[in-house]
Amino acid sequence: MGKELVHVYRGQYVESIHYGSVVVVNAEGELIKSAGDPDFKTFIRSAAKPIQALPVVYSGAMEKYNLTPRELAVMCASHSGEEIHIETVRSILKKINVPEEKLLCGVHPPYHKPSAEALIKAGIEPTSIYCNCSGKHAAMLTLCMYFGWDIDGYIELKHPLQQMMLEVVSDVTDVPKDEFWLGVDGCGVPVFGMPLKNMALGFARLSKPEYLKEKYRNAARIITEAMYTNPMLVAGTDRFCTDLMRVMKGKVVAKAGAEAVYCVGFMDKGIGLAVKIDDGGRRGREVVVLKAMEDLGLISKEELAQLRKYRHPVIKNHHNKVVGELKPVFTLK
Amino acid sequence: MGKELVHVYRGQYVESIHYGSVVVVNAEGELIKSAGDPDFKTFIRSAAKPIQALPVVYSGAMEKYNLTPRELAVMCASHSGEEIHIETVRSILKKINVPEEKLLCGVHPPYHKPSAEALIKAGIEPTSIYCNCSGKHAAMLTLCMYFGWDIDGYIELKHPLQQMMLEVVSDVTDVPKDEFWLGVDGCGVPVFGMPLKNMALGFARLSKPEYLKEKYRNAARIITEAMYTNPMLVAGTDRFCTDLMRVMKGKVVAKAGAEAVYCVGFMDKGIGLAVKIDDGGRRGREVVVLKAMEDLGLISKEELAQLRKYRHPVIKNHHNKVVGELKPVFTLK
Repeated sequence: MGKELVHVYRGQYVESIHYGSVVVVNAEGELIKSAGDPDFKTFIRSAAKPIQALPVVYSGAMEKYNLTPRELAVMCASHSGEEIHIETVRSILKKINVPEEKLLCGVHPPYHKPSAEALIKAGIEPTSIYCNCSGKHAAMLTLCMYFGWDIDGYIELKHPLQQMMLEVVSDVTDVPKDEFWLGVDGCGVPVFGMPLKNMALGFARLSKPEYLKEKYRNAARIITEAMYTNPMLVAGTDRFCTDLMRVMKGKVVAKAGAEAVYCVGFMDKGIGLAVKIDDGGRRGREVVVLKAMEDLGLISKEELAQLRKYRHPVIKNHHNKVVGELKPVFTLK
Repeated sequence: MGKELVHVYRGQYVESIHYGSVVVVNAEGELIKSAGDPDFKTFIRSAAKPIQALPVVYSGAMEKYNLTPRELAVMCASHSGEEIHIETVRSILKKINVPEEKLLCGVHPPYHKPSAEALIKAGIEPTSIYCNCSGKHAAMLTLCMYFGWDIDGYIELKHPLQQMMLEVVSDVTDVPKDEFWLGVDGCGVPVFGMPLKNMALGFARLSKPEYLKEKYRNAARIITEAMYTNPMLVAGTDRFCTDLMRVMKGKVVAKAGAEAVYCVGFMDKGIGLAVKIDDGGRRGREVVVLKAMEDLGLISKEELAQLRKYRHPVIKNHHNKVVGELKPVFTLK
């Protein structure tokens, strides 16, 4: 069970509380610091995307289809459905010669409100390319085309593509395949449940690839660099993943997952951080990630100042007046 | 601190957890049953609206302005901004001869998505009347007009209107005025923090008004009847308050508050129920309310069947396929 991580104040009083766990490990999987329960088991959700993109590189598909770092970055994204994301996913599909309708990620309006409103105004119904996972699904279709696999059933667990996903996530996080919890993700593909400390280990290894199996090492360098040099492609306007990687300038690779999961790898340091807010709500997550980075001494005051809105989130009322704030109440030990 | 109230499953595994407290008291304030912490102190938020509407009735303003039960119901609402709500609030403002611009509740788009999209399509910016609290603010303006108070500063604590709110909420919930936590609500007015058991007491008394001070008794009968006979005015399409009161046909008065507060009074029984999900997210709240009503034997199988989507909420993915569910994990003791 998690511990109290964040107090939500209204005025000077605590109105609500977020519980959860934070874990920090090195690339050998040794626990460095934590709060709450490092063994808390939950689904990694979209935080697995950078791991799931590795096969695109090590298979040779990246070279065959002449994929760019921007395209690799959007393959790792939970994007906001802004023009830059839609264009980049379309570019991948064009290179692999697969029509948009083959993206089986499902449909939701863009996270980016002005983009969603523009569709409504234009009378355009969102399609699967606007789904935050369309980049990952374009990556999956890329691998299907490269290996000559059926592209119609690629979201099913028994499909060779999903078996490949299972293997790479198992290898990187050090969880035996038969110990994963398996569920269905928001976008219809298999999703992997594991202890938080294994999520942290995966990101520790991504950040220091010599701790990965040899076949993944170069791919990890290429994928993480694609992400931190193109942070806008990984999330979008006013999104934490984008702003964190932009401010940290190559020092971290970071990825959110649904239900309030967050993973950070500290480049070259071989340190991985994983956070889960038990209630699954995003509100408590970002301040916890930054407080943990602060406790670890892995973010400077200047960097924190640039991320102030995430480190010191406020509650505003319908008059846009500040009436409360979020405060972390844990210290990593 | 709350206890585990709800498990959020993805497939067969628990992905997230909601903690919180549930308390049931009688109209004398005696604890009947609970889970978690009956003394958990938080803000009552919009669950206070039925109490805050009492002065409109007992003052004589209702009669002077010829207000209808529908208008009283929307005064107690956190409404969805549908046509029925906007029309009803406009009708109140017309009767008291105050222009819409005097509503100081702030602005947000209607909760009801088709209504929000209709505004976007028509190029109309939402105004304060679309705010979920515009009915309560119309009630506040009604009292200002009736008593001849200034209508420009009515949201400030020092204004006689807010002093009247402080008194009625104190009287009904049995919390001395100087023991309230005071904060600013989403709509800009003072908001009252108190133990959960006092929120439950307030609703127990509303449901059996002979336990209220004499001056409030008739008003409580009129307000609660206005709410349960016009449930659509209290919330809106596919909203829990509306559906619960519609199905329970006069057996309950119920009101949600922001940050996952919920209060129910069981009419004529003099029993009040209050729920707080610690994380403040709505997701866990409704299933907790219904499970508590089930444990109390105060809802029938047939009624539960009609509220199935709230009692057995599911998690769907972007393909609209069920991939998980919420299960309450407490029993009232």
